[in-house]
Amino acid sequence: MASVAVLGAAGYAGAVAAALLHRHPELELTHVTARTDAGARLDDVHPRTRVPLELEPPTTDLDVDAAVVAYPHGAAAPVVAELLERGIRVVDLSADFRLHELATYEEWYGDHGAPELVGEAVYGLPELHREEIRAARLVANPGCYPTAAILALAPLARAGLLGSVIIDAKSGVSGAGREPSHGKHFVTVDETVTPYKVGAHRHTPEIEQELGGGVQVTFTPHLVPVSHGELVSCYVTPAAEADVAALYRDAYADEPWVEVVEGPPGMQEVRETNFCRISVHGDPRTGVVIVFATIDNLYKGTSSQAVQNLNLMFGLDESAGLPA
Amino acid sequence: MASVAVLGAAGYAGAVAAALLHRHPELELTHVTARTDAGARLDDVHPRTRVPLELEPPTTDLDVDAAVVAYPHGAAAPVVAELLERGIRVVDLSADFRLHELATYEEWYGDHGAPELVGEAVYGLPELHREEIRAARLVANPGCYPTAAILALAPLARAGLLGSVIIDAKSGVSGAGREPSHGKHFVTVDETVTPYKVGAHRHTPEIEQELGGGVQVTFTPHLVPVSHGELVSCYVTPAAEADVAALYRDAYADEPWVEVVEGPPGMQEVRETNFCRISVHGDPRTGVVIVFATIDNLYKGTSSQAVQNLNLMFGLDESAGLPA
Amino acid sequence: MASVAVLGAAGYAGAVAAALLHRHPELELTHVTARTDAGARLDDVHPRTRVPLELEPPTTDLDVDAAVVAYPHGAAAPVVAELLERGIRVVDLSADFRLHELATYEEWYGDHGAPELVGEAVYGLPELHREEIRAARLVANPGCYPTAAILALAPLARAGLLGSVIIDAKSGVSGAGREPSHGKHFVTVDETVTPYKVGAHRHTPEIEQELGGGVQVTFTPHLVPVSHGELVSCYVTPAAEADVAALYRDAYADEPWVEVVEGPPGMQEVRETNFCRISVHGDPRTGVVIVFATIDNLYKGTSSQAVQNLNLMFGLDESAGLPA
Amino acid sequence: MASVAVLGAAGYAGAVAAALLHRHPELELTHVTARTDAGARLDDVHPRTRVPLELEPPTTDLDVDAAVVAYPHGAAAPVVAELLERGIRVVDLSADFRLHELATYEEWYGDHGAPELVGEAVYGLPELHREEIRAARLVANPGCYPTAAILALAPLARAGLLGSVIIDAKSGVSGAGREPSHGKHFVTVDETVTPYKVGAHRHTPEIEQELGGGVQVTFTPHLVPVSHGELVSCYVTPAAEADVAALYRDAYADEPWVEVVEGPPGMQEVRETNFCRISVHGDPRTGVVIVFATIDNLYKGTSSQAVQNLNLMFGLDESAGLPA
Repeated sequence: MASVAVLGAAGYAGAVAAALLHRHPELELTHVTARTDAGARLDDVHPRTRVPLELEPPTTDLDVDAAVVAYPHGAAAPVVAELLERGIRVVDLSADFRLHELATYEEWYGDHGAPELVGEAVYGLPELHREEIRAARLVANPGCYPTAAILALAPLARAGLLGSVIIDAKSGVSGAGREPSHGKHFVTVDETVTPYKVGAHRHTPEIEQELGGGVQVTFTPHLVPVSHGELVSCYVTPAAEADVAALYRDAYADEPWVEVVEGPPGMQEVRETNFCRISVHGDPRTGVVIVFATIDNLYKGTSSQAVQNLNLMFGLDESAGLPA
Repeated sequence: MASVAVLGAAGYAGAVAAALLHRHPELELTHVTARTDAGARLDDVHPRTRVPLELEPPTTDLDVDAAVVAYPHGAAAPVVAELLERGIRVVDLSADFRLHELATYEEWYGDHGAPELVGEAVYGLPELHREEIRAARLVANPGCYPTAAILALAPLARAGLLGSVIIDAKSGVSGAGREPSHGKHFVTVDETVTPYKVGAHRHTPEIEQELGGGVQVTFTPHLVPVSHGELVSCYVTPAAEADVAALYRDAYADEPWVEVVEGPPGMQEVRETNFCRISVHGDPRTGVVIVFATIDNLYKGTSSQAVQNLNLMFGLDESAGLPA
Repeated sequence: MASVAVLGAAGYAGAVAAALLHRHPELELTHVTARTDAGARLDDVHPRTRVPLELEPPTTDLDVDAAVVAYPHGAAAPVVAELLERGIRVVDLSADFRLHELATYEEWYGDHGAPELVGEAVYGLPELHREEIRAARLVANPGCYPTAAILALAPLARAGLLGSVIIDAKSGVSGAGREPSHGKHFVTVDETVTPYKVGAHRHTPEIEQELGGGVQVTFTPHLVPVSHGELVSCYVTPAAEADVAALYRDAYADEPWVEVVEGPPGMQEVRETNFCRISVHGDPRTGVVIVFATIDNLYKGTSSQAVQNLNLMFGLDESAGLPA
Repeated sequence: MASVAVLGAAGYAGAVAAALLHRHPELELTHVTARTDAGARLDDVHPRTRVPLELEPPTTDLDVDAAVVAYPHGAAAPVVAELLERGIRVVDLSADFRLHELATYEEWYGDHGAPELVGEAVYGLPELHREEIRAARLVANPGCYPTAAILALAPLARAGLLGSVIIDAKSGVSGAGREPSHGKHFVTVDETVTPYKVGAHRHTPEIEQELGGGVQVTFTPHLVPVSHGELVSCYVTPAAEADVAALYRDAYADEPWVEVVEGPPGMQEVRETNFCRISVHGDPRTGVVIVFATIDNLYKGTSSQAVQNLNLMFGLDESAGLPA
């Protein structure tokens, strides 16, 4: 049974990854690491994980087959490089290896810590890149917003139907991480909805890369008073007429973790699962195509998708250990 | 001092209107009515109002100068007609008199109960129709979504800059009324965001009427886990280049209840006030103009706006008794 | 593999029971029934269950080995009687068979629909009655408050240490059921905490029965703005000095689903699991012993406990299919 | 018109105090100070205050008649001493001058920064100490929990009926202050209830001092997912039989800000007001007397009560400027 470590397991994403791997029938979680919480047990820091492992100080000197790296952008790249050098396969949850163009990365994030690996990394959205993921040493796990937005728009993109694209996204607070701040204080978030990073969110180039065709999207995230959950509402002026309902049914007919439904889906319907739920609608008056996609930002948006990628990388049943 | 009745005071909108009028320095609340709660005191049904008046059974036989009618669409029209006949001036919170074209009303709502009054009613958005409101016998108080959306888009509309318009709206649950239903059950709403009435919400024609110029909007409301509060995120492909920041500053420079701010506003900033907060942004990459507007759906979105209209109708200080 | 039906699967408790049984490795969910939602698929009414079975109209004419009955109090008894007559073993989620004394039932609930079965029913709290449950035809699944309160106080009761007992309980809204009402409207529950049924909640005699020794408890439930989750804070003036920490450690050392922890536990720590988390404290100044117990009212408080009981009744691993 | 400064106006309590004073008809807010937010405008840091004053760096060199000091415990005392020396009357929101016995203060809080002033300070609960407050130079504004608990229990205490006392308290998150921390992160607080500081909360001696008679209380606070609001559920084994309903009606018959109601009150009923709502019940089976009291922790629990005290100190109408 392949052994896996989670680096940075005291954050929300790392903790969920550890919890899923701890219960995984065909992968063994053997190490968890953390910076400030090192020495504590993971189930003391995050009781719901019920992972009784002690958090070790940050290290790459690990005897494991694979690692999930849950580090902030920028901090991840050098750690990933070290792990690969030790022969450890990596699913990186940061943005460091998601963008194929180094220049684009530098424009949005600054200097890159391991530019030599950018060319090798595979973008870890199984529904788009399943075969490359199977063979990859380094998988760049998608951002939460991009996961939902790309799955929402890929069928239109592939059909060449993407005209202008507006993405109005709503996210729960865990998407902003566990580090305390005024913006994540209960009193700040409760009973309100607030747009943020208008016209400037770093997930924008990632969405555009995967949709391809030079499309540019207007992407606007909003913080909502929800712990985890994400909904993207996409508005597309289609480039041509098409039976979009059929397009979506066909696109995802064989995908185990994408559900195309009729009604507009709510976040609750996918909470704590690896599912992405999508519905597609035409506004009869304006002709605008409206696509909704909802995921749990900590599951399909991050950590259960990381496990889905590990399943592919190790030749396991793609759905093994994924929460439904 | 002019006397006022609130008809339908046991609903959320009616109760807030009654609470504001009860404390109003220059208007006197003398009657409140309700159907199922008749006989109870308003402050027992809605303790926060602290209005110690008894709810009377529905009637129009009232010795008052003005009435706020908080009835459902359809039920309001005949009651409004009776009140006017008795010489009582009316602010109607329903949709019955908001649309100038009877055919449009019938298309979206069905038969009209007092078509002869449609031509006379004034659309009660003071920022657009202040002078007509002063002289009106019958004011049709705007819907909550239209209040925010029209204030958000009117400056662009007047400048002839409205190209395609997407309105992604988020509303708290009180916007759906007090009547219990599965959709308003705490467990249904908590920890989720859900789109509804996609491409089919009845506030659409109201928004289009007030923006004018034949514009058609794609309007998509979402329910968020908030009691009251509303945010509209508007995406406009502008018809021409313009200094939109200056446009908004100028448009609302003298408006006491519209605040044009820099950062994107959150619902909390206007909670339980008559303010509408607006910010305008340009996406530097796509050229899309993004306008946010937030109001409290029960205040500027309904009941404090009704009081603002009454102030105008009775020649009082427009801001008298309005919550800041 | 034993087959199981869930009767009343459109309510919250029934839906969770169905979802757990649908994934159970050693029991097969073959039928789900519902009154108003009959004809719909369960995963349309409750998407998170992902149970693709059609809801059948209410019936007891079922070819199954066991049934979980999720009916309201009073309505359950006659249905349970029919099922037993057909040779179907029953876990009843209602209160109809929880009280051993018929007179006590009648005092708190009114007439009983199947008094002849009261003597046979086993109170389905595995930690107290494991052996009787294994042999039972009819298991009365405990109420949610009693589950937490009895587990919190049983060690003190058994040791004869219960003096006066105050139970201050906090519950999420799903505990009040799915039927819409003013009291469960989002706007009513949001941003508030409200006591209810002070000195008069029907779970009181159930708690007293299981604690035994003629103890009388002051039990006060409060509604909190949470979907599911329950915390009881118990205050006991102990009848004698004792090492209560050791008492609790020993009492639950071998119980797989009771966790005795040091810090006071929060509801989140057991959300959507079959765990009950308990901590015990002494107030150094007043000598009062304080015991906290938290469960998820829909899981250990109702439906996963029902599955735990089914596991015992069918000789399976007690923890099979239970959510951790 | 007397002039007032708020020191520490960037915290929640200071901001509410400033907002109330800014609108006060007979007091003038002339200065607001803050440490880290100095230089910003208060309505930028806390938009809802709509106070357009610039936050000045911390200082006591102020030309004002009175000051509200919203500093943490320990930091307040020396600042209060300086203000008094300058002839400025003070309402101190910290705990520094609430306890009459210096030894008790030192036991619960550590060294005192101005012990010479402890004897002079008046405990600022108008319902108990109205006359002393009128004459005071230094008013120690009560803690939020003590405000609710003392008002809930004072009638029983005065009648000599207090036997054993259990206080189970529930508070919204703003009670813990604005400083970000893991414990106040939205994800930590959402969908849970958690007890804290069991048997060790510093408000305990304050409650006992004001109830008098050597009574000792078991006080247990719980954090609930609410921004502001507080409910105390008090359980008293009465020392003798009494008509407690009459006791409470009489005790508060002339108090403008205490409402004795029949049903158990919820936090929402007093949100953003200076009211305290109380109900009293007898458990018919156990004889325990149950008293509920609810306040808004930022209003009657802190800042509107501070304004009520200022009104008394300056001979104004006690209710001037208080939110109803």
